[in-house]
Amino acid sequence: MNLRIPGPIPVPEDILESMSNPMINHRGTEFKDILFRTTEGLKSVFGTESSVYILTGSGTGAMETAVVNTLSKGDKVLSISIGTFGDRFGEIAQIYGADVVHLKCLPGTAVDVDEIRNCLNKQPEIKAVLVTHNETSTGVANDLEAISQVVKKEYDNKLLLVDGISSVASLPTYMDLWECDVISTASQKGWMLPPGLAFVGFSNFAIEAYRNSDMPKFYFDIGQYEKYFKLGQPPWTPAVSLMFALDLALGQILKEGIENVYLRHKEIGEFTRHQVREIGFSIFPDEKVASNTVTAVNVPDGFKAGDLIKFMKNNYDIVLAAGQGELKEKIIRIGHMGRTTQDDIKPVIEGLSKFISQ
Amino acid sequence: MNLRIPGPIPVPEDILESMSNPMINHRGTEFKDILFRTTEGLKSVFGTESSVYILTGSGTGAMETAVVNTLSKGDKVLSISIGTFGDRFGEIAQIYGADVVHLKCLPGTAVDVDEIRNCLNKQPEIKAVLVTHNETSTGVANDLEAISQVVKKEYDNKLLLVDGISSVASLPTYMDLWECDVISTASQKGWMLPPGLAFVGFSNFAIEAYRNSDMPKFYFDIGQYEKYFKLGQPPWTPAVSLMFALDLALGQILKEGIENVYLRHKEIGEFTRHQVREIGFSIFPDEKVASNTVTAVNVPDGFKAGDLIKFMKNNYDIVLAAGQGELKEKIIRIGHMGRTTQDDIKPVIEGLSKFISQ
Repeated sequence: MNLRIPGPIPVPEDILESMSNPMINHRGTEFKDILFRTTEGLKSVFGTESSVYILTGSGTGAMETAVVNTLSKGDKVLSISIGTFGDRFGEIAQIYGADVVHLKCLPGTAVDVDEIRNCLNKQPEIKAVLVTHNETSTGVANDLEAISQVVKKEYDNKLLLVDGISSVASLPTYMDLWECDVISTASQKGWMLPPGLAFVGFSNFAIEAYRNSDMPKFYFDIGQYEKYFKLGQPPWTPAVSLMFALDLALGQILKEGIENVYLRHKEIGEFTRHQVREIGFSIFPDEKVASNTVTAVNVPDGFKAGDLIKFMKNNYDIVLAAGQGELKEKIIRIGHMGRTTQDDIKPVIEGLSKFISQ
Repeated sequence: MNLRIPGPIPVPEDILESMSNPMINHRGTEFKDILFRTTEGLKSVFGTESSVYILTGSGTGAMETAVVNTLSKGDKVLSISIGTFGDRFGEIAQIYGADVVHLKCLPGTAVDVDEIRNCLNKQPEIKAVLVTHNETSTGVANDLEAISQVVKKEYDNKLLLVDGISSVASLPTYMDLWECDVISTASQKGWMLPPGLAFVGFSNFAIEAYRNSDMPKFYFDIGQYEKYFKLGQPPWTPAVSLMFALDLALGQILKEGIENVYLRHKEIGEFTRHQVREIGFSIFPDEKVASNTVTAVNVPDGFKAGDLIKFMKNNYDIVLAAGQGELKEKIIRIGHMGRTTQDDIKPVIEGLSKFISQ
């Protein structure tokens, strides 16, 4: 099967096999070594010298971790949404009692930093900005560096909380350089792992915010992670098998060099979009904002996304993703994170081409 | 290595290997089949016809799920604690805004149901009772059936929330028969799986309580699990590899028959305690309340738990657990969940015996 959805991604054989290692004591020295080594590796990939915590959970859990550890009930926050995952980030903040101001962009577009500036000028009491780095629902990457330039350089003391679930370890992300306060990500994306782990980076400013945050939390309380980390332990029993896999995958990423990983993703993104256009399909977002981890393709007039997806599965054993929400029948999405090669993409293109010429 | 801590437990080879299966789409039909089949299997083991949800997370996350989905801020709850995990359950409720009444029992004892009755009579506004079924920190099992007889038969409309993390799939637990409203458990115990999944059963009464609960939740919101389950999907990306393992392990448990699994645990518990006494050690709790999943052993006078644990690791490659909190140097704990045989326990006994005769 050629699994081409935007996560989970096909996991390399050796990483899958590492999960068959026998269980170890998560409060023993062997686990301590893995925890310390993987945390250092994660910090290197995040581009941060502050803290990265490893959670057992999904990316959504990591988004909740960002919110509940930095904000308090009644805090005004700006939730930027360019798709369903952006909506989700704002929804989590709202549920936990934040006063959420929504900046909702048209599907297929990235956020315009001038609009962010307008919002922050109009409502100076906004304490935090929530933004998706890479929106898999529409195949769009926001310009995180430009967003950070506005939020962190033009204003004082605003928290920048980033959903980096499908960007970190795939798209250039420099947590310290770009002054991101929290970045959440999850294992089943560029990390080349099965789902089940999530990683959350906290800047020193975010940790200061933690001390004043009154949102309730326990499982996702980073204070617990910090306290136990000093002992070389996780606070709660972790997904040990996935930690073996993380240890191996991180070693591979660091050996390759994170800049090379970014370059590979850029190349495969460009290749995919080029190939898609070559056979007469069009890309849903504008090329300038198209994501290098997932390509959203318009379903040609007269065809249905559901039929296309079935055709690809039945004839090519290729699994593509449909659109979400209002885009369900309008687009299909091709994932190309992790070790995706041109040879993985070519049969997708062949299938798409065949589908419309039926 | 002979891993004899109260979780993670040694996972059978075939279950470990099942985790190397390639990734699949968690929103596709193959996953749907696994989700439906494992959920049915879980319901059978829980002994319930209502709902069991599968979470990616630890047992602590499953405890949080019990609390935040059934309670509201200001609700008075009775938190029964016979050890550190009982304390944790009450702490979670407190953090989310419940008004917690504590019934704290001496370490090594089980709760006396008369004390529960006293609390409920004195404070009739208590809405929920939180209790640990099997407390691994002290090696004690509460009499859940007797507790339920009081809480559910003698009073109307009280919620019974059970931490069954180290009991379900090991010790007799009949959710519907004993009218438990929520039972939380986790994969790295009697389920014979690595950690990373948690299972939470909700009675119809608990689901009614959910509708009126105002505690904030998102990742652990069972409403989301219920909504997506109807589509044959999890709400968030699940730990797919662990789902493969769950599918296999549940098949084995159901094939053996859950009553046989209970019997095995009873036998290995009795065997372990008998052997421990034979070599002159004493069991921390009273035999009547001793757990059949973990045995807490008193460290003989003049010896230190830390030294004993090191000795066992260095000389026998056996990993035992120390006590927790104030019991740290006083007891050691031997886990015997899952497929533990007498041959797994015998070297532990040999080592303990050697340690004191050095």
